[in-house]
Amino acid sequence: MTDAIRAMYINCTLTPSPGESHTDLLIEASANILRKQGVEVEVVRAVDHALAPGVQHDMTEEGASEDAWPALWQRVLAADILVLATPIWLGDASSVFRRVIERLYAESAELNDRGQSIFYGKVGGVLVGGNEDGMKHVAREAVYSLQHIGYAIPPQVDTGWVGEAGPGPSYGDEAEDGSRAGVDNEFTNKGVTIMAWNLLHFARMLRGGIPTEGNDRNAWEQGERFGFEQPEPR
Amino acid sequence: MTDAIRAMYINCTLTPSPGESHTDLLIEASANILRKQGVEVEVVRAVDHALAPGVQHDMTEEGASEDAWPALWQRVLAADILVLATPIWLGDASSVFRRVIERLYAESAELNDRGQSIFYGKVGGVLVGGNEDGMKHVAREAVYSLQHIGYAIPPQVDTGWVGEAGPGPSYGDEAEDGSRAGVDNEFTNKGVTIMAWNLLHFARMLRGGIPTEGNDRNAWEQGERFGFEQPEPR
Amino acid sequence: MTDAIRAMYINCTLTPSPGESHTDLLIEASANILRKQGVEVEVVRAVDHALAPGVQHDMTEEGASEDAWPALWQRVLAADILVLATPIWLGDASSVFRRVIERLYAESAELNDRGQSIFYGKVGGVLVGGNEDGMKHVAREAVYSLQHIGYAIPPQVDTGWVGEAGPGPSYGDEAEDGSRAGVDNEFTNKGVTIMAWNLLHFARMLRGGIPTEGNDRNAWEQGERFGFEQPEPR
Amino acid sequence: MTDAIRAMYINCTLTPSPGESHTDLLIEASANILRKQGVEVEVVRAVDHALAPGVQHDMTEEGASEDAWPALWQRVLAADILVLATPIWLGDASSVFRRVIERLYAESAELNDRGQSIFYGKVGGVLVGGNEDGMKHVAREAVYSLQHIGYAIPPQVDTGWVGEAGPGPSYGDEAEDGSRAGVDNEFTNKGVTIMAWNLLHFARMLRGGIPTEGNDRNAWEQGERFGFEQPEPR
Repeated sequence: MTDAIRAMYINCTLTPSPGESHTDLLIEASANILRKQGVEVEVVRAVDHALAPGVQHDMTEEGASEDAWPALWQRVLAADILVLATPIWLGDASSVFRRVIERLYAESAELNDRGQSIFYGKVGGVLVGGNEDGMKHVAREAVYSLQHIGYAIPPQVDTGWVGEAGPGPSYGDEAEDGSRAGVDNEFTNKGVTIMAWNLLHFARMLRGGIPTEGNDRNAWEQGERFGFEQPEPR
Repeated sequence: MTDAIRAMYINCTLTPSPGESHTDLLIEASANILRKQGVEVEVVRAVDHALAPGVQHDMTEEGASEDAWPALWQRVLAADILVLATPIWLGDASSVFRRVIERLYAESAELNDRGQSIFYGKVGGVLVGGNEDGMKHVAREAVYSLQHIGYAIPPQVDTGWVGEAGPGPSYGDEAEDGSRAGVDNEFTNKGVTIMAWNLLHFARMLRGGIPTEGNDRNAWEQGERFGFEQPEPR
Repeated sequence: MTDAIRAMYINCTLTPSPGESHTDLLIEASANILRKQGVEVEVVRAVDHALAPGVQHDMTEEGASEDAWPALWQRVLAADILVLATPIWLGDASSVFRRVIERLYAESAELNDRGQSIFYGKVGGVLVGGNEDGMKHVAREAVYSLQHIGYAIPPQVDTGWVGEAGPGPSYGDEAEDGSRAGVDNEFTNKGVTIMAWNLLHFARMLRGGIPTEGNDRNAWEQGERFGFEQPEPR
Repeated sequence: MTDAIRAMYINCTLTPSPGESHTDLLIEASANILRKQGVEVEVVRAVDHALAPGVQHDMTEEGASEDAWPALWQRVLAADILVLATPIWLGDASSVFRRVIERLYAESAELNDRGQSIFYGKVGGVLVGGNEDGMKHVAREAVYSLQHIGYAIPPQVDTGWVGEAGPGPSYGDEAEDGSRAGVDNEFTNKGVTIMAWNLLHFARMLRGGIPTEGNDRNAWEQGERFGFEQPEPR
């Protein structure tokens, strides 16, 4: 059905498929909620795709031997909802997460047919999992970057799981007593639920797009200022 | 008119009134756009108010000799749009900005009559000005914190001005040749315009609130899970 | 004894004395190691001092009704070791921590009698405690800011404790079973130990100061370039 | 001469050799100062090396088809000074920078023959260049990460260049009037000079290593506590 809301999760684990990813478990918890509401969900493991370094649309035109981004970009474009999901290393997101941000950023000069950023009308969120500390730091990077290029950020769309300071199990790891780390964490589970639904609510709300006043960059280029005046010192 | 959209700008400068604030100039550039659209604008300089340290609603109940937050909080509650505006020191936001975040955070357990975060239906953005570097770092803090407690973040609502690396003029400072730093910066001016309008578009869109599925915390407390299931390892 | 190494811990809790501070407990764990080595330790709770907002040495000269910084600054100056200790709120350091950074930064134009930053020869570190997530984000702020103004940062001088994602006990809080959160965390305890000793090793190493080649700002002002040449494009 | 101080600069540009790198220009400004003092300088462009994703020493043992890290690691080990140099994209360091941090972090369990982190005795710094904003944010990441794994951070070893907010020239770009962006920026040039010399001063100072009290992890494993005692609540 072409009218279904589409959601794309980009798993930024460092582990290629079919290796196990703790981040995948978080993604599934979230994606299952959306699937039940008829959302078409796609999960992509970015490290499986040869995303060339660079900030142009197609790095093969700049000399790279291969670049999976142009194909992946079409799928990003087709999705109403984008969720970046990443593990934590040394308190920050993975290099793969960073690579995805770079490639998204490289598209930020693209406009839709209303003169707005090509990302307008889409919504974004972030899932973070680590064995310890760094969830909010990573969420800052994701939420900031997505809104800066044109995604809308519904309320409370950052969540995940981290354990106590120091080495320890990652999300979903089984302990000696058979319990699995994080999976019954009330805070995480509630966060995952709120996030999934708020992404859906906003994706529906934005299906008709965002009004163009103020953000039509073609009009700005042609001299329209939408009421802006240079501030005068007092 | 009670139906007008209301916007509140909190200027987090370290300089008490009536001292000059470069941040005020950025605020005026933004607020003027909103005023022309009939938005009721309020600008508050946080440092003029004795915001006690602490993370309770009213710190006088915890022993503080005074606390201006409870009164200020009523005004935050009344506003559809909240813009945090701050200078930069050593690459980060001011201590006053941080104090405001702490006090907002202290209200994050409050729910509206639908069981949602009290901030639902409101939208937030950030204005940052400094003589050099740090704009995006500060915007990360603002955008992240606001969405985490319940504000919606429209696209491209972080903007401001910083100069070249090293000491130099702040936004609006007059040079020897009579020019004023930053005020004719095309990037900043376009950013201020897009931001103001997107805040307005989303404030209007959210006037009816956000659907409660998934984010009704009272329902969650009573056992409703909105389709959430614990993830199973593969 | 005037030759003893001196260490200053600034507790950036939001709670005035004599209120309980979890951060104090971390400080004591660290300070006790130094005291056993003959270090003269001073612990200051910044919120007990009326540190005026602003980035000048003495804000009473700018109109503030009071300012405890000039007196506190003398004690900072006397210390070989500075440890910033802070709780976490919404994933970042406290507003009091930020205020201390602002006031330290305001002194960064001061030079010692060798033309170097007044902070040269001193060493810095950071202790962070929260009930969840944010330790490394805060440590970034502290370590970066201290080295930027002139402190040396020995290896591995960031440590602390945070619990699992979500609400929960803070460091030292007693559970129903009588155990206390974090105090037997091996990672934290080892980190506290390494940090205290490395601060001491480096404070001793730097007692004679840092050679002035390259960093004598008076010489730079007078035209000395210490071998610097503008880079030429290839 | 085997006793010469060795410095390694890792250029984290996204552009493979022999493409032009603005970051290289900053590196040369810094490296030239060190070369004049007899330091053996090596400059590596990380993107030229196939650094596999992952946090193990040799990812070919985990299934990667190739991994240039083990060879590069030997060169990192041989250097007394490590400078991470990176461009800025969307206010943060490059994905290549992040990859390098991940691989360094993966070695952090390695100990030297004194039971200390393998990085003890080495010093680190950071050079950042972008067309606008983000220098200090990136420096936070670098300085924090390096000290956390065992590098010492001399004072004032973060520097670089960024221009005014908005699109514009990068470091070294030639303008129509023949001037080149940033190269005569006094702040940057002084920063580059101070940084180079402080790295050198500390590398010399640490040639004999760091005393082992408190940081000998083998001793800790065997029960030595170096004076650490669990803190007692008041």
